[in-house]
Order: sequence, then C-alpha cells, then structure tokens
Amino acid sequence: MRYFPTVCPRKNICADEYTLRVRPRFYVPDLDPAAERIQLPDDEAEHLARVLRLAAGADVEIFDGRGGLWRARVVQAGKRAVHVEPGERIAAALETRIPIALVPSVLKADKMDDVVRDAVMLGVAAIYPVLSARSEISLAALTRSHRTDRWRRIAVVSAKQCGRAVVPAILEPTTFDAYLAGSDKPVGGDKPVGGGKPLGLPGIRLLCVEPSAVEGRAHSVHDVAAPSSAHVIVGPEGGWTTEEVAAAIANGAVPVSLGGRTLRADAVPLVALTAVLTIWSAL
Amino acid sequence: MRYFPTVCPRKNICADEYTLRVRPRFYVPDLDPAAERIQLPDDEAEHLARVLRLAAGADVEIFDGRGGLWRARVVQAGKRAVHVEPGERIAAALETRIPIALVPSVLKADKMDDVVRDAVMLGVAAIYPVLSARSEISLAALTRSHRTDRWRRIAVVSAKQCGRAVVPAILEPTTFDAYLAGSDKPVGGDKPVGGGKPLGLPGIRLLCVEPSAVEGRAHSVHDVAAPSSAHVIVGPEGGWTTEEVAAAIANGAVPVSLGGRTLRADAVPLVALTAVLTIWSAL
Repeated sequence: MRYFPTVCPRKNICADEYTLRVRPRFYVPDLDPAAERIQLPDDEAEHLARVLRLAAGADVEIFDGRGGLWRARVVQAGKRAVHVEPGERIAAALETRIPIALVPSVLKADKMDDVVRDAVMLGVAAIYPVLSARSEISLAALTRSHRTDRWRRIAVVSAKQCGRAVVPAILEPTTFDAYLAGSDKPVGGDKPVGGGKPLGLPGIRLLCVEPSAVEGRAHSVHDVAAPSSAHVIVGPEGGWTTEEVAAAIANGAVPVSLGGRTLRADAVPLVALTAVLTIWSAL
Repeated sequence: MRYFPTVCPRKNICADEYTLRVRPRFYVPDLDPAAERIQLPDDEAEHLARVLRLAAGADVEIFDGRGGLWRARVVQAGKRAVHVEPGERIAAALETRIPIALVPSVLKADKMDDVVRDAVMLGVAAIYPVLSARSEISLAALTRSHRTDRWRRIAVVSAKQCGRAVVPAILEPTTFDAYLAGSDKPVGGDKPVGGGKPLGLPGIRLLCVEPSAVEGRAHSVHDVAAPSSAHVIVGPEGGWTTEEVAAAIANGAVPVSLGGRTLRADAVPLVALTAVLTIWSAL
C-alpha cells in the first residue's frame, strides 16, 4: 500500500504517519472475533471516521491487545458509532522471545511519553513506573494529571505503529521501595491495564547504573545469562541515590552499566532494552 | 559535585542540565595545552560568562575534540574575552573499541537533531548524512538552512553531555548514490568537520532494513563478525526503495534487520548502534 506522509493532528498520541502505510489498525480490548459485527470503542471510532475519514467498505485491521489480530471491513461509519465485520486472523509482529518488563523512574512529561512509546516499540511485556528519590514529581501529581491513562493511550498507539497486537500492561506508579519489596501487583489496579499481562516475579532484575555509582561493581550485560524473564530498572535524570542502589542490590537486583559514556536518562531505556534483547538473542 | 537541575535557556543545543553535575566543559578546537593562557572561542566564552555566569577562579575543563581533556582555571571572564589557564590532563569517557560511523538518511529537522545527539552519545566516530529517494528535503534546502553547522553544534554539546573528549566528524550531506560509490571524503569539506577523523573505507557496511524489504534475505546482527570498523546505514521515514537496497547490496553492504517489530525511523540509529556495539563487545 502506498505511503502517505500525512501527519495526524493528534500528534504524539496518533500513529497515522505510520498506519497509513499499511491497513489502519484499531484496538478493541474486548474483541470477540466470532461476532458478526463489532462496534469500535469511542476514541477508535472517532479516529476511523473523523480523522482518517474512512467509510463503509474500507479494509482495516482490529486487534485485542492480547496478541490477536484480524482483518476487518467497515460496515458502518456513522457519527454515533462505527461497526466492522471481522475477517481472517492474520499474523502480528513477533513478540520478544524472553518477556521483559521496563521499570522506569518517572521522567518529566514529554520524556516519559517517549520512554513509554519506545519501550512498547522494542517489545516490552509490561511497564512498572516507579518514583525514586530524585524523581521530580509526586505520586499525587501523577494521579491528578491522569498520567497513567495517557501512557496507556500512548502504548496503544505505539503498538499500532510497530505492528504488535499486544498492548503491554502499564501499571499504576508506585514508589521504588514498594516496587523492590516485591510489589509485582498493580497498585490501584482495578482499572484495565492494557491487554498484556504484568510479569510475575521476574527471572532477574537488572539495575542500570553509571559505573561510578557502584565503584566498579557494575556488570556488563555480557555477564548476564539469558533468564526466563527480566525487569530492566532505569533511574531518573539525577541518577540513583547510594541508598537506592544498595537497597536494590540487597533485593537481588544485578547492577549493570551500559558502556563508557554517560547516557541521557530518557535514552537509557531504549539502549538497555536493545542491549539485553541483543545479547539474549531475544530481539 | 552537587547536581543542580538548572536548564539552560538554549535548550536543545546546551548541555547545562548535565555539565553542572560535574565541572563545566568547554570545546577549544585548536587547543595547545602547553600554552600559558588559552582564549575560548566566542560561543564557548559567551556560554561560560553569560549563561553559566562563571568568574575568574572557577574550575572548568577544556577539550580539543580529538580526545584531549584538561582541567583549567578561569583567569579572566570579561565581556569581550574569556581566558583560562590549562592544568593537568584528565581521562575522558572511553571511545568505542571498534570505530563506527553512522550513515543516516536525513530526517525532518527535530528528528535529525535527535539522531545526531544520540549517535554522538553512543560513541560514533563520524556521521555521513545522506539523501535517499524518500528523504523529504533537498541538498539545496539543507545548505540554505546551514543544517550541517547546526548538527556540528549539537555534536559538540552531546560530546560534553556524554563525557567524550572526541567530537565526531559530521560530513557534508551527499546523495546515497554518491555515498555508495565510495565517497568517504567530505563533500564540500573545506570547512572544519569536528575534531574526529572521518573513517576511511570501513571494514563492513551494514544496511538496516525492514525484513520485508529484502524478502527474508536480511541477516541478524548476530551473524556479523566484529569488523575493524563499520558504517551503519539507516533509511528515511518512508524506507528504502527497492533500487536503493539493490544498489547498496551490489556495493557490498550487508542487509540486517533489527528484530520483529517496525521501528520508528528516528529510533533506528540508536537501536542499530546499540545492537552492533553490544554484539561486538564494543560498547
């Protein structure tokens, strides 16, 4: 299909520049492929009808966020509702061979949006946002600004862009201490958290550190054998405190450093995830 | 030293948020460490005196962009000139074990800025911007907007941020065809091109492709043995044309794919560089 370099007015939280290269793809969390007709959720319906201006007869794709992807045909694209008719099941982008969750210290707004987008693109199974000592935002402020909802919307868009039919779970933010204490359950987790399942306790927890933070005791990713699953933990702009590094190691985390140069906090997730997925042949 | 989360008003092309964590660092391309006094170039002087408001006596660092880094003391910070007195030579961040150049298709303005910044952070030896069939800008427009100068400024700032004392060479943009034809010389290269030396003909050229672009003939980075040096070639938002992929392969480039998901064009350089540096133990 021809590539139209159209940019959607919804910018950051819209994948149009990419989805138009292929069939537009819509997220239907409670999708039943045996149904004769499926109604799209409101925001996906608006996107189909008002932003992309698709009409009855258009070829699209629908996915359930849990790995299922189907072709579909628009049967009605009205102002109040969009219905599609599901067709054959098709293959989505591959998931990583080893499930990996990202545990990012919450960064400033735009940067955190990018971290979520990039982590989903690289194939994470879940994201556990944490607040560490040098995070420059409070749990209350995150809640007030409905940040988790925003990250979940970004995760959906990023899944569409990169071709995944899995929407990783984005858990409610928690403190780093609570996370280390083994909290692998969503905090305030009554809301839907994306279609992907949060990982249980991982095979290994890797703590990304600058070499200077642990006085030469950081490992290279080459030293870490491929686990059954992993959490990759990344610090905030100001870095970890000495106490946080000690607490993480005491809780079994393995400190790893990522080469000889100082990386920007918002680039560390992409670099760390790529490095472990590469070394574990799991990309 | 204490971390002050001050953000410099020059934003994208200023490293203050980072350099204030350590001694501020200034770039002096023609640095002679044997000199008694060294005058900073105008933009670095302005940054020291007006932006950071440092005065005589301040501890700083100066680097030559070719790997040399020295402590220095400000001896005069006037409105018209800043002079420093060089001190002992100190160690900079490590360079990668295998020199790698990035050959990015030029992306839209902001994204290309990020590509340059990230590539320098990851340790590239040089950047060869190329225009491919689907690049959405012309050589004339790049020249008119002095884009190469901007990228060189960004490279200097990124080198400061990540701790390198090498400023990678940013070559003048050229067409993809001219690049493939073996043009490892700067085009229009009379201007200074950063302190780093462009690589000569590399040990290997890797062409990053989506798996679909070469019908299953793409290699994994795991299949590529560590070379003496490498060029990593990355396409534009719209991807390579069939002809470009064929021409690159005919010129000896090895097509590699980076996992099962579709990556955003502006993220590919970071992912590709991390993957090869990891697999070649060169990070």
